[in-house]
Amino acid sequence: MAAATVRRPGGPADKDLPVAVDAMGGDKAPGEIVAGAVQAAGELGVGVVLVGRPEEIGDAGGLEVIEATEVIAMDEDPAQSVRRKKDSSLVRAAEAVRDGRALAMVSAGNTGATMASALLRMGRLPGVVRPAIATPVPRPGATPTVLVDAGANAECTAAMLVQFAQMAAAYVSARYGVEEPTVALLSIGEEPTKGTPLVKEAHTALEAAAGVRFVGNVEGRDLLPGTADVVVTDGFTGNVALKTLEGALRFFMDALAEVLGRDDATRQAAEALLPHLAPLAADFDPDNTGGAMLLGLDGVCVISHGSSSARAVVSAVRVAHDVAVGGLVGRLAGSVSSVSAAG
Amino acid sequence: MAAATVRRPGGPADKDLPVAVDAMGGDKAPGEIVAGAVQAAGELGVGVVLVGRPEEIGDAGGLEVIEATEVIAMDEDPAQSVRRKKDSSLVRAAEAVRDGRALAMVSAGNTGATMASALLRMGRLPGVVRPAIATPVPRPGATPTVLVDAGANAECTAAMLVQFAQMAAAYVSARYGVEEPTVALLSIGEEPTKGTPLVKEAHTALEAAAGVRFVGNVEGRDLLPGTADVVVTDGFTGNVALKTLEGALRFFMDALAEVLGRDDATRQAAEALLPHLAPLAADFDPDNTGGAMLLGLDGVCVISHGSSSARAVVSAVRVAHDVAVGGLVGRLAGSVSSVSAAG
Repeated sequence: MAAATVRRPGGPADKDLPVAVDAMGGDKAPGEIVAGAVQAAGELGVGVVLVGRPEEIGDAGGLEVIEATEVIAMDEDPAQSVRRKKDSSLVRAAEAVRDGRALAMVSAGNTGATMASALLRMGRLPGVVRPAIATPVPRPGATPTVLVDAGANAECTAAMLVQFAQMAAAYVSARYGVEEPTVALLSIGEEPTKGTPLVKEAHTALEAAAGVRFVGNVEGRDLLPGTADVVVTDGFTGNVALKTLEGALRFFMDALAEVLGRDDATRQAAEALLPHLAPLAADFDPDNTGGAMLLGLDGVCVISHGSSSARAVVSAVRVAHDVAVGGLVGRLAGSVSSVSAAG
Repeated sequence: MAAATVRRPGGPADKDLPVAVDAMGGDKAPGEIVAGAVQAAGELGVGVVLVGRPEEIGDAGGLEVIEATEVIAMDEDPAQSVRRKKDSSLVRAAEAVRDGRALAMVSAGNTGATMASALLRMGRLPGVVRPAIATPVPRPGATPTVLVDAGANAECTAAMLVQFAQMAAAYVSARYGVEEPTVALLSIGEEPTKGTPLVKEAHTALEAAAGVRFVGNVEGRDLLPGTADVVVTDGFTGNVALKTLEGALRFFMDALAEVLGRDDATRQAAEALLPHLAPLAADFDPDNTGGAMLLGLDGVCVISHGSSSARAVVSAVRVAHDVAVGGLVGRLAGSVSSVSAAG
């Protein structure tokens, strides 16, 4: 592991640094998380360091372990737990990134606490008002639509939405190689006059925003399949929309599985269909998406879903490593407009 | 048709009055709308009157026609069009209800203009701050979850959300026979401390609200299948959530249809599955739900979806007739708390 160095905000990442994986976070931690970390190191040929309680991690498969004696549970209050549990795996993982000992962090734990740890330890990029969560919504046959903010900020200003759009556009370019990604604003009609005062103000601001190829408003039905590369909204609406999609996905998958298993005839039909359904199921398997990205911090933080399997951890480590090496933080730092005027 | 009478607000409906159907509203108007109206009259044995241009309606199948020379298009500005087109089918249909010549109105036309016509001509019930749209979300094997507000009011106060909850609970009781329906608040976490200031305030207010069996916050993933009989939210969030669900539904139906039709083997599998999939598809066919209900007006107004077929019109007429005869308006009038204090 590299020695601690002083990084300048948004500075280049050392690609030889390991990705720090919070071994204690997630419904299947530490078992699946450790297995995924080991698998990631082997399959991807990238450095991985585990963060957590050595006695619970057990066999680390040859990976280095940053010891942390405390664990923040999935249901703990984010701000309080991060303040109190200074030796938690989440806080230590964020410190490793801050101190230049890790390239990026990955956690499948408490989302709010992951955000709080990353924010408090890594800090915001200069000029960024608030960090936001960018979550990919699959588009079969194309790069995902990235929804931002998917839940970090229940209350937003138009200036914040503009920064979210700018950062998400930079992220989509960095991660998916999309040049000048299209950006849409989530509303309840295509007309600029529809929606809340926030949405109307954001619409006007996005039309004038640097680095944003704004294509206007979209509605909830334009999220799947997404009609734009980035869909920007406040964290309340984004969280509701994303969870509504997740719920609908699960409902249909469950309903279809129930029908396919109903009797001999349907089970036979299922055998004929499964090879055709499998790619669709894979597209929507959250273990494959690589997780959500926290945008606006001086470091890379990937939030994997709570029920992450080993495979989800591999995806998350791959994404964290790739975007960190690709200079995501520097690109984000250069993407945002000053909000001194807009507040 | 009965002669015009003076009704008192929330007074009982005359069950012999016809349901007024806007013959000109909807993507398939007037053909499918007229066919549905004729079918409804025959199948349901209820009175139906068409409203629109006689020359476009053509053969009214023996139904009476209230002549209206103007038509409000699907994409016209709601407030402006209703103000200017005083002889439009939408305005005339609302007037027929106001004047005691119709039991209720049904339209598959411009949603905003339908609301505006109904609001301006029927008026609000005493004490109601703002009317809201209540939309059923199917729950296979159970009564639907009713989402309110599904889009009438982009901006809401906590007092408005309380009234929406009270009216929707009364509506669910009247329409589905559910006694003391459960009411949940849409948020981004179950904790009362999560969400926007509006949601936090509404949470507290709903705990104390008369006539509301409040079961706390739910998240987007609790919409399908719904965990409560009523889910209350502001009209912006509700519209985004509902359209997100609709989009996901269409996406999965299309994806499944594509897979089932891919080759001979999948088409054979489809034959075995269709009898099992049909009930599920029927549950989610918007032509079967009977449409959305405008709550808070001194009259019954059912908003059917824009692409309504004849069958959707039959469903909507049935619902409009049943809830009007069942005394929905009176129940709604008695359901709402005064907001003099809450503003």
